[in-house]
Amino acid sequence: MGLVNNFKQKWDLLVIGYRFMQLVQAPYGDFAGVGRLSKLLKKPSSLRKVIEFISRSQQGQKALQERPRLGKVDLQQLHQLPKNTLGYLYADHMLKCGLTPPQTPEVIDEKSFPSIHLLETHDIWHVVTNSDVTIAGEIQLEAFYVAQIYPYPLFLALLAKNLLKTAIEDIELSEQHMNALVQGWLLGKQAKPLFGIQWNTLWETPIDELRTELNINQQIGKTPEKVAVAS
Amino acid sequence: MGLVNNFKQKWDLLVIGYRFMQLVQAPYGDFAGVGRLSKLLKKPSSLRKVIEFISRSQQGQKALQERPRLGKVDLQQLHQLPKNTLGYLYADHMLKCGLTPPQTPEVIDEKSFPSIHLLETHDIWHVVTNSDVTIAGEIQLEAFYVAQIYPYPLFLALLAKNLLKTAIEDIELSEQHMNALVQGWLLGKQAKPLFGIQWNTLWETPIDELRTELNINQQIGKTPEKVAVAS
Repeated sequence: MGLVNNFKQKWDLLVIGYRFMQLVQAPYGDFAGVGRLSKLLKKPSSLRKVIEFISRSQQGQKALQERPRLGKVDLQQLHQLPKNTLGYLYADHMLKCGLTPPQTPEVIDEKSFPSIHLLETHDIWHVVTNSDVTIAGEIQLEAFYVAQIYPYPLFLALLAKNLLKTAIEDIELSEQHMNALVQGWLLGKQAKPLFGIQWNTLWETPIDELRTELNINQQIGKTPEKVAVAS
Repeated sequence: MGLVNNFKQKWDLLVIGYRFMQLVQAPYGDFAGVGRLSKLLKKPSSLRKVIEFISRSQQGQKALQERPRLGKVDLQQLHQLPKNTLGYLYADHMLKCGLTPPQTPEVIDEKSFPSIHLLETHDIWHVVTNSDVTIAGEIQLEAFYVAQIYPYPLFLALLAKNLLKTAIEDIELSEQHMNALVQGWLLGKQAKPLFGIQWNTLWETPIDELRTELNINQQIGKTPEKVAVAS
């Protein structure tokens, strides 16, 4: 049995390595590749740790029980809201990027909730944390996730992927990417937990008010290098 | 020719991926594996960037011209120095870890100097930056290197390796490892350049004096989590 387990462990690692390197070689934004890696990293034991971690905050515990869903989102309608609101900024972000709210499956239990919730709120986190859609912005948001939900292997693996990709393909950007990672981590540690927020009740809330409430300080999240890239 | 280049590029990436994943699977401290990955990442273009970067500081430029070597180091003799000196602390670190100063080849030109210099001074950097020999300490030092010599792909690749290893094997340590990475980066950005220092003239200098001179603030470099591991 030990031999079989040992072989299985080695095999799993080989498959993870293969998928990881496929992602390193793919152009940025290979969501199908991220999905494949995510599935491989989702072990029952790590999911238990994620749920235990999320349960530590009242908001997280409540979210795991009530499993709030984003529901149907009408981007055109949200885009009519005042320009300083979460709803307008989210819709504007989605429309500019040519994105539609992701189709997510039904949540059947506590275990399936975290990944579905994170997937359907990903672009809201982009807006709220002021992480743009440059590579540096994605790295910042990945580090923010790791800071907010430590035991979630996928985000750490995505950071690893992006650092290796930088080392191989874009070494000139290493300072910019490391700055983004560090800023995302510091911002994520400083902010209140974002996991479990019922975002669709907040569309009309001014973004500044929301960021102040969540203790997200723009000064930390935006480095001079990132401004230069985004502009 | 384009086809040949394209094939070569893909082949190189495959070999890097193989070596990278070998390192992820190996126990920590696989120096031979690090050496193999280092060789693969050393392209003439990236070496040019490293040399250009180092030349930006007067100290770096001088070092590239004069190529200071550590020379013969007598650990037992250094261990007789007062306990607050660089020499004592370096010798103590080496003896406790069961290490001897690495045998490094001759430096034949400017191009071969950076990697040999970094290799023979690695453990001095450990002592000066107060990075212990735990995994977190190594991660801190790797991030310090990246902050000090941005275009050096190896250290970024080692950080990537350690983050992926953490995601797969030690997810509970992700906060500790990310903290170490962030502290190393901030410390490296804050400190004066360490590259090119003629360390063997400083054995008798008290470490506090040296750290003050180099603007290495222990408060940044030591997080509560790291203290807990080291103790």
